[in-house]
Amino acid sequence: MLKVIGVLSVFFICVSILSFCLKTHPDMKVPVIKTIGLRTASNGTDYFIDKVDTDAHVAFFYIECICNAWFTFEILVRFIASPNKCEFINSSVNIIDYIATASFYIDLVLRKFASHLENADIMEFFSIIRIMRLFKLTRHSSGLKILIQTFRASAKELTLLVFFLVLGIVIFASLVYYAERIQTNPDNDFKSIPLGLWWALVTMTTVGYGDMVPKTYIGMFVGALCALAGVLTIALPVPVIVSNFAMYYSHTQVSCLVM
Amino acid sequence: MLKVIGVLSVFFICVSILSFCLKTHPDMKVPVIKTIGLRTASNGTDYFIDKVDTDAHVAFFYIECICNAWFTFEILVRFIASPNKCEFINSSVNIIDYIATASFYIDLVLRKFASHLENADIMEFFSIIRIMRLFKLTRHSSGLKILIQTFRASAKELTLLVFFLVLGIVIFASLVYYAERIQTNPDNDFKSIPLGLWWALVTMTTVGYGDMVPKTYIGMFVGALCALAGVLTIALPVPVIVSNFAMYYSHTQVSCLVM
Amino acid sequence: MLKVIGVLSVFFICVSILSFCLKTHPDMKVPVIKTIGLRTASNGTDYFIDKVDTDAHVAFFYIECICNAWFTFEILVRFIASPNKCEFINSSVNIIDYIATASFYIDLVLRKFASHLENADIMEFFSIIRIMRLFKLTRHSSGLKILIQTFRASAKELTLLVFFLVLGIVIFASLVYYAERIQTNPDNDFKSIPLGLWWALVTMTTVGYGDMVPKTYIGMFVGALCALAGVLTIALPVPVIVSNFAMYYSHTQVSCLVM
Amino acid sequence: MLKVIGVLSVFFICVSILSFCLKTHPDMKVPVIKTIGLRTASNGTDYFIDKVDTDAHVAFFYIECICNAWFTFEILVRFIASPNKCEFINSSVNIIDYIATASFYIDLVLRKFASHLENADIMEFFSIIRIMRLFKLTRHSSGLKILIQTFRASAKELTLLVFFLVLGIVIFASLVYYAERIQTNPDNDFKSIPLGLWWALVTMTTVGYGDMVPKTYIGMFVGALCALAGVLTIALPVPVIVSNFAMYYSHTQVSCLVM
Repeated sequence: MLKVIGVLSVFFICVSILSFCLKTHPDMKVPVIKTIGLRTASNGTDYFIDKVDTDAHVAFFYIECICNAWFTFEILVRFIASPNKCEFINSSVNIIDYIATASFYIDLVLRKFASHLENADIMEFFSIIRIMRLFKLTRHSSGLKILIQTFRASAKELTLLVFFLVLGIVIFASLVYYAERIQTNPDNDFKSIPLGLWWALVTMTTVGYGDMVPKTYIGMFVGALCALAGVLTIALPVPVIVSNFAMYYSHTQVSCLVM
Repeated sequence: MLKVIGVLSVFFICVSILSFCLKTHPDMKVPVIKTIGLRTASNGTDYFIDKVDTDAHVAFFYIECICNAWFTFEILVRFIASPNKCEFINSSVNIIDYIATASFYIDLVLRKFASHLENADIMEFFSIIRIMRLFKLTRHSSGLKILIQTFRASAKELTLLVFFLVLGIVIFASLVYYAERIQTNPDNDFKSIPLGLWWALVTMTTVGYGDMVPKTYIGMFVGALCALAGVLTIALPVPVIVSNFAMYYSHTQVSCLVM
Repeated sequence: MLKVIGVLSVFFICVSILSFCLKTHPDMKVPVIKTIGLRTASNGTDYFIDKVDTDAHVAFFYIECICNAWFTFEILVRFIASPNKCEFINSSVNIIDYIATASFYIDLVLRKFASHLENADIMEFFSIIRIMRLFKLTRHSSGLKILIQTFRASAKELTLLVFFLVLGIVIFASLVYYAERIQTNPDNDFKSIPLGLWWALVTMTTVGYGDMVPKTYIGMFVGALCALAGVLTIALPVPVIVSNFAMYYSHTQVSCLVM
Repeated sequence: MLKVIGVLSVFFICVSILSFCLKTHPDMKVPVIKTIGLRTASNGTDYFIDKVDTDAHVAFFYIECICNAWFTFEILVRFIASPNKCEFINSSVNIIDYIATASFYIDLVLRKFASHLENADIMEFFSIIRIMRLFKLTRHSSGLKILIQTFRASAKELTLLVFFLVLGIVIFASLVYYAERIQTNPDNDFKSIPLGLWWALVTMTTVGYGDMVPKTYIGMFVGALCALAGVLTIALPVPVIVSNFAMYYSHTQVSCLVM
């Protein structure tokens, strides 16, 4: 019985996330047609068809309704079944659950009674909280539990990593900004230091998109130092975090990790 | 004798793969000329020369014929020589072999008797199964055997790695999609979340093609988190897999690894 | 008391760096308006408004003044409080502090009395020394201390890493330069070996911007070797440096790392 | 005395390499002016000035002469000083030295007596052998010796790494080639499998230039698998090579590594 609920729960989370992703796809969208006016011409009546916006396909709405119905049912069942009500309410996983489910109902209510408001985009943005539902999988996957435990235990090392990165990014962003201004190059990508921060981060993590690239020899030299510093800075604290993960991983000798 | 067959087998696999790769090269292709009609003009006869498509050079066909003749011969010899016929048929390496060889013969038959069918492209696509012939090298290379054993033994860790990646990709794709929509930027690359998934994966594996790049500061911040999360997420389960590989590698103290 | 000064010091360093970065942002800049002349037309007087340059917002100037006032105060307090004056003056962290603070005052004086000089850009460039103030954080963060100790202890390995990289870069830059010249390709990115050095470094550190890409098959083969050599060259000395870091990290069993 | 020769030798190698790199720089080149003809017009004589090509600055020639004079002197001194002449001649480092020095003299002779030949570009290409002179530094740097010993001892693992990479590249190049052909996309980058090999390598080493990028969803899925496979394939044999390096590195407890 518990296992069936678990499988159903994972299934509905996946469906909910899939629907969340797919409904933004252009092929899944339908144009919103608004008949604004009615123009009476000499030889008859002419309707305005005005495609102002595209909207997600209506099927996604029904899928979301079903998923949220399940999530509401699940929360209730869990609440009734839990021996300690206080603890249940304060659990961080449950809080995500309440907010995500509540955001759906608020969205529903607003759409019904406040469709004239022009805050559709803002509503859409707040719907991002529903993606946090993925963390509900921690309840079903021990692998994710280990990951979160590792990150919690390695908080100090993570802070250190972020601190080193921020230091490196600020230094190299400043250096490259001034380096690229010494020689005159008309297509300078480094218009400001905040933009340089993005470049420095992309270089230090060795992602290297190539949307911003130093063009002068001095800038290239700074870029070389930045790439090298990045390799070292990131390599240093990672093994400490990795060993924390390996420890937690070997401790929990679980048979089924993902599920 | 066995060694000669082994060397010959590896040689034919390599030739077959090389031919498979090279026959798609534009320089190796010849135009398909079809004389569709014959137009009788007032001052003589005019032929239509219609270049509809390009086809692989005919030499590749002969190379493939020779290779497949060898593979057929090899399968037969192995089948006769094997003491346990049942086990031989069910072996996964052999199954790849049957299908790859069969696909060639089916292709041959279809070309002869069904050339009028318009499924040339579909046929070509199914020919991808022949690339799987590379796995026949496991029979000759102990290095590849170790690799496959490692991946089989690390199935749990690999699932975990893929699971972490999928989680990260979905979260960051959603975040970047909404982040790039807050500020108005006309050349927004993130048209939908499914496209964002591709960007998130490319960033998390630190490949960083640069075909999709966040343009707003909020998007860049999400990108920074994504790159950092990628470095950590991938770094965590890899050492576990690596130690599995090192174990298998030191166990099989083989003298010749590749061959 | 000491803790309050520490927190204030870190706060002012952060504010100073933030101001340093943000004042280069286009949105934070105001145009410099110079009324060069006064043209008397037939029907009245016409003023010239000439936007020659943009200047940082005046608020940043006040922020910098406050920060530098604090830094000056801090240096004085530390100097008076230090038991050994000689040692205090020669400390490398303090030297950065003097120069950074002095550069602000020199800048201030020059702006007042030498505004007619056309060296504004040169002045701006020297202001990069102020970014070095970040290293003052070593006094407050034990994490940064460990990083600097690690790099000092790993000087030999770092030299080795740089040496390997320089070797690899020079060899692959030369190879790719000549490789791309064998076949005629009109949009050859490798105009000279010094430019090739940049490409080789970007490839060996696996950053891969894509601003320079080999176009011919021979160039691609060189690129393949370069990427492979880079993975190996960088991977080799890094673990030695990492183990140095792990040693220093475990030695200093500090409770608060960043602060 | 020996130390002075060593320092001088390293100095001349560096100068020679620097000259080799810099002479290809556009700013260091001078146009070759050839007065082909002399046209006698009605109102006087008109000279043709024909800039056919650019040539390296003449200063580089003198630098190379001095360097090669030193290298010739060094070879002679070493030959006379060596107790075992046979061993000296067969040493691999010396062979590079002979060829590099000989290539300079052959170049010199050819330029003098065969300047009418149109093989200037071919000559230039063979000059790449001079870059191999960098390996002469092994005589002076124990760090480089360790690197070469490591690669020699890890020959098996390196072959394995290359073998895994080749396997992966061939499989993913084929997959992406056919994947990108299923959906019709006009700007398909994957024109042939050999081009796909380059993409697959760039993705598997996580360099990610972005000159070739899958455009369809199926192609992106193949790309995702490729990036993941690359991370694993390269990560697996590297630690074995790294441990070999660490062993050699700790064995040779040298005080001066680079020099």
